[in-house]
Amino acid sequence: MEIEVLEGIFDANEIIAGENREILDRHGVFMVNLMASPGAGKTSLILKTLEGVGGGLSCAVIEGDIAGKVDSERIAEQGVPAIQINTGGSCHLEAKQVNTALKRMELEQVDLLIVENVGNLVCPAEFKLGEDLKVMILSVAEGHDKPLKYPLMFSESHVLIINKIDLIPHTDFDMESLKETVRKMNPAVEIFEVSCRTGEGLSAWTGWLKGRVETSK
Amino acid sequence: MEIEVLEGIFDANEIIAGENREILDRHGVFMVNLMASPGAGKTSLILKTLEGVGGGLSCAVIEGDIAGKVDSERIAEQGVPAIQINTGGSCHLEAKQVNTALKRMELEQVDLLIVENVGNLVCPAEFKLGEDLKVMILSVAEGHDKPLKYPLMFSESHVLIINKIDLIPHTDFDMESLKETVRKMNPAVEIFEVSCRTGEGLSAWTGWLKGRVETSK
Repeated sequence: MEIEVLEGIFDANEIIAGENREILDRHGVFMVNLMASPGAGKTSLILKTLEGVGGGLSCAVIEGDIAGKVDSERIAEQGVPAIQINTGGSCHLEAKQVNTALKRMELEQVDLLIVENVGNLVCPAEFKLGEDLKVMILSVAEGHDKPLKYPLMFSESHVLIINKIDLIPHTDFDMESLKETVRKMNPAVEIFEVSCRTGEGLSAWTGWLKGRVETSK
Repeated sequence: MEIEVLEGIFDANEIIAGENREILDRHGVFMVNLMASPGAGKTSLILKTLEGVGGGLSCAVIEGDIAGKVDSERIAEQGVPAIQINTGGSCHLEAKQVNTALKRMELEQVDLLIVENVGNLVCPAEFKLGEDLKVMILSVAEGHDKPLKYPLMFSESHVLIINKIDLIPHTDFDMESLKETVRKMNPAVEIFEVSCRTGEGLSAWTGWLKGRVETSK
């Protein structure tokens, strides 16, 4: 009974995700669905990514949060269009919320749209939004044992960004063990090691992303 | 329509949480519902808590995860009875899962039962399990801005444990700002600052918890 309800939700979501995909294709927009635990560095990575891909690409951001608008304000301060979605309690974004946001944006002027999902390593992985790329962040402080505990997120993501690598000397984080586990679950995953705080590793990520956006045109 | 479905789920959960409460009272068990983001240090805190309250209190643990059993194995290695609940995809524990676990435990021998919820700062706060105490952990690495983004968890918890304080010198974490925000949302909250890695602050937490368990008898 419960499963039927959930299937209904997933089916409806899939249909609207398809509609989002058509809207994005029509306007030549590349959409990234950015997912991570609370505090892994989603907003910081977005700010650094906007800086890094700046020249030549026009960007916009959709911010998903349970409540508040601190994140979209931080983005808008950089002069980048940002729309805030407050889920009002729900622990993930769904395609219909993104659909509403897309219809309010001037998409003909956007090359790269980054959607910051709600901070959660579980449910966001289950709901397609119509994105080109699922990107997840794992913070070094969360530990290298997370893939086995949150398998769907690690196996669904096209890109894994390991953030806060400046903290490695102060933790028991085992980078090789993490990568080995993730690659077994998801052999095609692209992995980047970065620190949004020191800037280390960011140009490899933003250069790669820029290439993906440009070749999708 | 969607709201009705959710209300149904919450009502059913509430009834079973009440049943759990009766079972715990009948056996004189004090139950802690421990919640946090992935990687904030739930299992580490449990291990340190078991050590700290050791003398005189008999403990048991229920481990909630989407998948895997690494955590319950770590607990069992300490000689403490541990039951693993795998939610199979669900991002939080519900009372009925705890109910099933309670019925399989030898509760007459337990004083303190710690339930490690699924790593998630959102939904676990919505589902009562029949606990005496809701305890949440925030890791320093997650940042001091989390209360405004995940308000229900911070306002529902009886205890906030700020973990990984050894990382403060390597981050931009503002302890005073965090405490001020949390106390505005939840004036009665007990706050402990700890590092499970260095051991700092843990005796204040375990001493307080031991007192709570003993006075509940």
